[in-house]
Amino acid sequence: MEVAPIPGEEPWSAGAIGNAEWSGALLTEVLQAAGVYPEVRHVAFTGLDEIEMGDQSFGFGGSIPVEKAMSPEVLLAYEMNGEPLTPGHGFPLRVVAPGYIGARSVKWLANIRVQEEPSSNYYQTHAYKLFPPQVDEETADWSKGLMLGELSVNSVICQPADEEALPAGPVSVRGYAVTGGDRSVERVDVSIDGGESWMSADLLEEKGPWAWRLWEASVDLDPGEYELVARAWDSAANTQPELSEQIWNFKGYMENSWHRVRVRAR
Amino acid sequence: MEVAPIPGEEPWSAGAIGNAEWSGALLTEVLQAAGVYPEVRHVAFTGLDEIEMGDQSFGFGGSIPVEKAMSPEVLLAYEMNGEPLTPGHGFPLRVVAPGYIGARSVKWLANIRVQEEPSSNYYQTHAYKLFPPQVDEETADWSKGLMLGELSVNSVICQPADEEALPAGPVSVRGYAVTGGDRSVERVDVSIDGGESWMSADLLEEKGPWAWRLWEASVDLDPGEYELVARAWDSAANTQPELSEQIWNFKGYMENSWHRVRVRAR
Repeated sequence: MEVAPIPGEEPWSAGAIGNAEWSGALLTEVLQAAGVYPEVRHVAFTGLDEIEMGDQSFGFGGSIPVEKAMSPEVLLAYEMNGEPLTPGHGFPLRVVAPGYIGARSVKWLANIRVQEEPSSNYYQTHAYKLFPPQVDEETADWSKGLMLGELSVNSVICQPADEEALPAGPVSVRGYAVTGGDRSVERVDVSIDGGESWMSADLLEEKGPWAWRLWEASVDLDPGEYELVARAWDSAANTQPELSEQIWNFKGYMENSWHRVRVRAR
Repeated sequence: MEVAPIPGEEPWSAGAIGNAEWSGALLTEVLQAAGVYPEVRHVAFTGLDEIEMGDQSFGFGGSIPVEKAMSPEVLLAYEMNGEPLTPGHGFPLRVVAPGYIGARSVKWLANIRVQEEPSSNYYQTHAYKLFPPQVDEETADWSKGLMLGELSVNSVICQPADEEALPAGPVSVRGYAVTGGDRSVERVDVSIDGGESWMSADLLEEKGPWAWRLWEASVDLDPGEYELVARAWDSAANTQPELSEQIWNFKGYMENSWHRVRVRAR
């Protein structure tokens, strides 16, 4: 599906996602030790990096709601997969806020503030916002727009690859599915005819909450061309939209329309 | 949009929803007083009603996850809008589990059980389940299917009514939007051309979490025929699917495709 291009952003397509095992201090214990006053609604983080923008220089920042910050899964992490963080992953200390967009897991953590409003950092108030389809970069009112937070439900076909030529016969279709907050992926549907008909994929071993859920479906392909499609459902029965054009926004965020892969069996 | 009919169910369309103020005991305090052992994952409720099914008679029942049951918004309610419950609303005591499908708010409460599995009651294991589109009543494997729980995101145009004839000129389009769990409704889009183009509705006063969010959009209609459409977005940027056929299931549950109202301005 060709839709209007997204200006000035790198198309990450179905990539820029991974799973790791994180170790660190529980943010909730740090906050409880420091004390949180009753009016606090958000916990804001700022990094040590220095971003130049116009004549200003500041650290990357963002915030999460205090209820999330007080949940035991949010870490001040100093290890990734049992090793100290590498510089690229935020050494010496970073936030890990599972179920939220990656931008809230601030790296090279410099400070933590408890406050009544969301972070006033550019990356909270400006960058990661979802606008309606009738709004573009020129007309955006930056005081509005949905501040991205929890992830929407999404799924991706990893195998076979788009445009792949395969031997006819049985084919294993595999991929991942994710959702945000404390929701779980409850179902993945797979189609070999562009979404006309569906079968249920097998959900593979659960890696735990907030990790992706791998899935697999076995299909039998006669020689010909196929459009493979996947869509996931979360535990509240939300599912992915059929077409990109139904969710187009000028920043290109939260693109979770049905994932499609064209293959030829011969 | 005409889709395959749903057998044996009453079509509730956009109705069967309301908002009330409930008073009662916090379920979490009752559970804490009684004690909950660490393996507990679900809290199950059974009502005093006697449902005849085949040669069995049993009370309506269902369960919610223990994390939800321990949240302060879940009530054992004995008052609705400041008055004792009426018989129809569950006198003398009922569950109120906001953000979940109504079936989990068991009326005429007889008992509460903490357990490791979801309720084995017919209405948990059988009735309120979402199946994929390729499954029908004959082929359903009742050990599978998504047990409904939190509500998906939805919105409805209440005014004008479908097939209404209106004076041309300014028209106020009004309705409600809801979502489940601890998500909030963050945006409602309105279209007067069947979803080709959109404007943002104004979200009216927030009644608090779990209540519906009322909204309004002012449109200007020249004489002619229009298809008004509404769609809502939750705080994780999930939105409603365009067409019923994209979410068809043989029980007709969780129908949250774009709500459409045809009007004529003259």
